[in-house]
Formats: sequence, C-alpha cells, structure tokens
Amino acid sequence: METLERIGKNAKAASFETGKLSTAVKNAVLEKAAELLMDNKEEILAANALDLAEGERKGMFSGLMDRLRLNEERLMGMAEGMRQVARLEDPIGSIERSWTRPNGLLIGKMIVPLGVIGVIYEARPNVTSDVFSLCFKTGNACILKGGSDAINSNKAIVRVLRQALVEEKAPENALQLIEDTSRETTKAFMHLDEYVSLLIPRGGAGLIRTVVKESSIPVIHTGIGNCHVYVDEFADLAMAAKIVFNAKTQRVSVCNAEESLLVHEKVAPAFLPLLEETLKEKHVELRADEASAKYLKESVPATEEDWGKEYGDYILSVKTVSSLDEAIAHINHYNTGHSESIITENLPNAQKFLREIDAAAVYVNASTRFTDGFEFGFGAEIGISTQKMHARGPMGLAALTSYKYIIYGNGQIRQ
Amino acid sequence: METLERIGKNAKAASFETGKLSTAVKNAVLEKAAELLMDNKEEILAANALDLAEGERKGMFSGLMDRLRLNEERLMGMAEGMRQVARLEDPIGSIERSWTRPNGLLIGKMIVPLGVIGVIYEARPNVTSDVFSLCFKTGNACILKGGSDAINSNKAIVRVLRQALVEEKAPENALQLIEDTSRETTKAFMHLDEYVSLLIPRGGAGLIRTVVKESSIPVIHTGIGNCHVYVDEFADLAMAAKIVFNAKTQRVSVCNAEESLLVHEKVAPAFLPLLEETLKEKHVELRADEASAKYLKESVPATEEDWGKEYGDYILSVKTVSSLDEAIAHINHYNTGHSESIITENLPNAQKFLREIDAAAVYVNASTRFTDGFEFGFGAEIGISTQKMHARGPMGLAALTSYKYIIYGNGQIRQ
Repeated sequence: METLERIGKNAKAASFETGKLSTAVKNAVLEKAAELLMDNKEEILAANALDLAEGERKGMFSGLMDRLRLNEERLMGMAEGMRQVARLEDPIGSIERSWTRPNGLLIGKMIVPLGVIGVIYEARPNVTSDVFSLCFKTGNACILKGGSDAINSNKAIVRVLRQALVEEKAPENALQLIEDTSRETTKAFMHLDEYVSLLIPRGGAGLIRTVVKESSIPVIHTGIGNCHVYVDEFADLAMAAKIVFNAKTQRVSVCNAEESLLVHEKVAPAFLPLLEETLKEKHVELRADEASAKYLKESVPATEEDWGKEYGDYILSVKTVSSLDEAIAHINHYNTGHSESIITENLPNAQKFLREIDAAAVYVNASTRFTDGFEFGFGAEIGISTQKMHARGPMGLAALTSYKYIIYGNGQIRQ
Repeated sequence: METLERIGKNAKAASFETGKLSTAVKNAVLEKAAELLMDNKEEILAANALDLAEGERKGMFSGLMDRLRLNEERLMGMAEGMRQVARLEDPIGSIERSWTRPNGLLIGKMIVPLGVIGVIYEARPNVTSDVFSLCFKTGNACILKGGSDAINSNKAIVRVLRQALVEEKAPENALQLIEDTSRETTKAFMHLDEYVSLLIPRGGAGLIRTVVKESSIPVIHTGIGNCHVYVDEFADLAMAAKIVFNAKTQRVSVCNAEESLLVHEKVAPAFLPLLEETLKEKHVELRADEASAKYLKESVPATEEDWGKEYGDYILSVKTVSSLDEAIAHINHYNTGHSESIITENLPNAQKFLREIDAAAVYVNASTRFTDGFEFGFGAEIGISTQKMHARGPMGLAALTSYKYIIYGNGQIRQ
C-alpha cells in the first residue's frame, strides 16, 4: 500500500508538469514511443511469450489467448495508433468561449487536463499504449492496472513508453503501471481519490460493477451494451432487414451490436419471415416471444432473462409490441444506455423516439454499430460511456479534459 | 430501507416524465409553487417555529439558528428565487452542435436532463425550494435529504411544492424528501446508484468528505474554498490593497473569500504596511510567516496548519515568497481548487499564473469574491464545484444536464 501511495503522489506531481507541456513536446513523445515500440519488439514479444505460456499452462480460454497475443503486426498497429493520436488536434489550453460581464470582467472557459487518470483493464496489452497516448496527449498523467495475465507484456511496453518520456525530457511518471495485480492492491487503488481524478474500468460488466461499488474516485462506466432496433409500423422493411442484419452480425462481440429486436405488430407478419431469411446466412438463433414466434419457422422461446441480456454472440431476442410507446418503455426499462435505433419513415415517430429514449446514442434508420469515436469523427476513443455524468457515448480526447475559468480584471471588487 | 428503495424507484419513474415536460409546463409549476409558498406561509412558519423551538431547547449555536429561521421576507425571497428560475432559458432539448459524416449520418448533440439528482444539505430550509427549482427546470427529479434540525420546515415546504406539481399536472414525485434523517438512512441514500445519477452534498468540509468516501453515486464536491491572492512584484499596490480588503472582508463566511495572502519579497516592505493600515478598519487578524512579520506592526506567527485553513472569519494568513514559481507551487499545494487571484501589471506573469494554477476560477487583478453563478452571468447557482469531473466552478442550469447523441440516417450500415 505504501508503494501505491507513492505511485499516486508521483502521478499527481507529474500531472502538474504534463499539463504544462507544449503540443510539440507531447507529439514528439508519442512519435518516439511509436519508434521505440518497434525498436524493442523482440523484448516485448519475449515478455508476451511468457504471458502466453502461463496462459497455456492455466488452460486459458482461446478467445482470451487471442486478445493477449502480440506479434509484429499488432505492435505495428499499436505504434500507428500512437502516431494517429500525435496527429490529432490538442484541445488543451484552448478557450471554449469567453464573455465580458457588465463590470468589465472578461471570463474565458479554458480547456485543461483532468490531472491523473486511472485505468483498470483486462488482458489486452494494446490497451496500454492506447490509453497512455490519449491521456498524455490531453496533458494527463495516468496510472494503469492491467490484468495479471498480461503483466509481463505490460511491464515491457510500459518500460519502453517511459523511455520515450525520458528521451524527450517529459516526466517519466506521466505513465505508471501498478505491477502488483493482487485484489487488495486493486481495491486500494480505487481509493486513491486524493491523487486520481477519474477512474475508467475497461472490461466486462462484472469488473465495472465492482469498480462502481468500491471506488471513491469518480468512475466512468463504459462498454456495456444491450442495444435494440425497433422496427416501426411505418418502416421500410427491406431497409430494416439490412440494418438488423448489420447491427446483429457485422461483429457480434462488440458493445454496439444489436442484442434485441422489437417489431410493431402490424408489420411483424411481413417483416419477421423476411428477417429470418436474411439472418439464415449467419445462423442467428432467434429467441422470440409468443407473438413473434408465430411468424418464424424456427425460434427458441424467450424468457424474461433474455430481454436484459448482452449475448455478444449470434443470438437475437425478438419481441412484438403494439405501439411505439410500448417499444420506448421496454427499451428504457431493459437497456444499458448505449445505442438504440428506430426504423421508420414517419417523422413524428422518429422524433418521439429520439426525444424519449434514454441512451447515449439514439438512431433513426441506421445501424447501432456506428457508436464509436472514429465513426463519430472524434479521431480516437478511450471507451463508450453509458452514464450521464461528465461524458456520454464515444469518448474522444475531449472526454479526458476539464476546464477552468480564467478571468481578466482591472481592479474589480465585489459590491 | 424499503422506503428508500421506493423513493428511488418513484424518482426514476418521475424523471422519465419530467424529462418530457414542455418549458411552459415547467415554468407554470415554478410560478404556482412561488404563489403557494406565500399562500401557505402560516403553515410553513408554524412548522419552522417547531424547529426553532427544538433548536433553542438543544442550545443551537446562534449562527445556525439564523440559517434555520424563516420569516415572511425570507419566504418572499424563496418565492422570488423560483420565479427567477422560471424566467431562465430552458437548456433541455437544444442541440449544442451537429455535423454530418462522410456516409451521410447527421449527428447532433442534444442536451438532456441527468435524471435523478440527490442533494444532502444542512439546516437552511431555503435550499429546499432553491434546489427543487433548478433540478426541475432542467427536467430532473430530485430527492432531498435536509438536516434533522430543519425537518418540520422542510416537510411543510415540500408539501407545498408537491401541491404545485399536482395542480399543474406534473409528476408529484419530481420532488421527494427523505423524512427519516437518521445516519443509517443517509448512508443508504448514498448507495442508491441504481436510481440516482448525481449526488450533491451542500455543507461543510466534514459532510463533503463523508459523502465522497461513502457514496457509490457520482458526487460533486462544492463550496470548500481556501482562496489566495498573490501580490506580484509588478503589482499596482493600491489596487492590490483594495482587492485584498474586498476579497477578505466583504463577506468572511463564504467560500470565495480570501483566506491567504502571498506577497513577493520585493514589494513586501511597501505593501504589507499599506495593507495592514487598510485592514485595520475590519480588525483582521494577520497570521504571518517570519519574513512578512517584519513589516507588520501586529501579527500572530503562522503555523503550517494556517496555510491549509479556511477560516471563514476575520483572519488572514500572510506569506512572503521569492518568486512567482514559489507562489504557484504554494497555491497548488494548499488550495482547494476554488478561486485564486494574481495582482500584477506584467503580462507574462499574469498568463503563467492563469495557465499553471489548478483551480476552478483563476483571476488577474480582481477579487476572488466574483466566483458565483450570478456574477458569472449564469442566472442561477446550485453550488460551486471544486472538482474537475462533469462541472467545475459555479454550477448553473447547464451543470444539471447531460447530453445524448441523436443520429439521422437513411439506411446506413457499418462496413
């Protein structure tokens, strides 16, 4: 715990320095880090091989092994990611707006770093360089706690990134890794509120729930998505089938994939057979309520549990509703505040859905798969927030900043 | 606890309704509430008399008794406050910005309510109508936990405000008071994260610390201010004396009052005697370091504890520094992130101070007393945030909102 306290203090001290760095220095660090990542590829891959061997020994699930695995191509991707962040506009120090008060005070809202950002994540070593580059570009120091399964890989990557900081004369403690991955240390990390401004858990629902319950540092929930598409009575059914096919099957494991379909009862007889035909190619299992099952050749009865489920798989729950209001109420009850879409040609229905659905991204006639920092044009993404405080939806660089008011006077005193 | 769970559920359900209310209905509720507050003044004042009698019996400190006391004039102030909020522009539903992506998706960032806001406060019954009007105008439901000392007053006020909601056909549960003011219930309230989006503690440092440590709901810290004025070597000394006099004495009990003075060693010999003369009128006690004491006729030696103290009284700590860097480092170490001011005629020094000081409001040549929602032109204030997440500095209506992305497509699918 003493170490953790020191890590917190180091980060806080470094954050005062990183907040003052010029854009040129920050970019030079990121370019240098990209270069060193490739120069040190043998060392990093050797460290990764240790983690992989340990994973094999423990019988790690193949999907996890794949996330853990690094190779030259993946390292190149990490380096290129850092170069891309270097090319993004630096938001720090810009004045978002300014105004003059009747007493002559000129008030400006200046974008500033948050300070120290903590990130808790699981077995993907690429998150290490990814998170560092976004936090550092926005003038923040960061403290990372990766999964124990990737500890050797993360240590090797962090060593290289810190070398880039040193070589470019930036504070080395702008990046620190918590090497002790024990549960007690992770728990204590969540209470470093004296030093850490923001904690972002990146991982499954279990991790996020634990962090929200335990942390005394403000937390941003990310990446849990029980996303719906609602096919309205006024939908273009061919478009609807194309969108559901895309939202469900284009990449099933991601948080913006569709998990549940709602269909208006008036179009269910025409739409559901068309959709079943479309989805056949991908062997999607349909878990349907009774009203929908009537129009499907093959389906599994949906249970209450299905409505709240993020499958992350080729499975779709299907429910027939008798009104737009019923669809909205169902979504607002079961969703996770991520992405929801209505397919309709009717303007009032589209507007009502946009207004009343409580989610980070609400679509009309488009796939939910677009909820993404790159697709939104932010040029980066540290996660997709499913909460309402501070940042909501895809989080680009702006989500890692705060602001302060700067005020120019010429002797004003309060009356 | 069962009751608390029900209060949470009620608030969440009400928040879906309040989020949809038109500006006209929201304003009508606030106008009606203002009217009913005066129509029911006898009942409210009788309830307040019960609280005052109980306070007297318990030997309550006279400052607290004064905060607790209502009279016709204060009720009129509360009613007028609600009417003022009715006149403010409604931010809900506005599109902050919108842009079109290359694939034709039109993305807009729409301002929406946060949902349910919880407020924990102490003995001022006027906070009840104040907080309700700001939360309700921004389409939020709120749950209030006032101090046990004001429970009869709060119950009477809340009954009247809920009557206004009913009369204007708005959801009554847009406002709920937790009537059980026990410690256990308050603690349980801080864990209603399933229903409450944001918790704002309004009160002393002890209350705020407890809430930050205990709450699993995101918290905004407000109102703790150890504010500094730094008199630079290039200061206009007459202006500096006027500003320090104002920042220290215009109202000593508030969070944006000055608590500590830093003086550059080059101007200390000329400035400190001038300041002492100016402050004499208000009998301000000066707690000075050795270097400053030399230039003061009368002072008390400052201890380490003084640098971190929010006196809220006619006391000022005084320290001489040998550089701007030393002043900045001292402030960033001891301040509470509230308001700091530099007095200087030198542009680079002013800019360095603005850039490097870590606080919600950073001033050049003005009193710290301007950090206030009304003085900033926001037309309202629910508190002054001293943290960096979500909202910083004076919090007007905008601080009680979130946003969602609304996206119009015409069949877009992700490639």
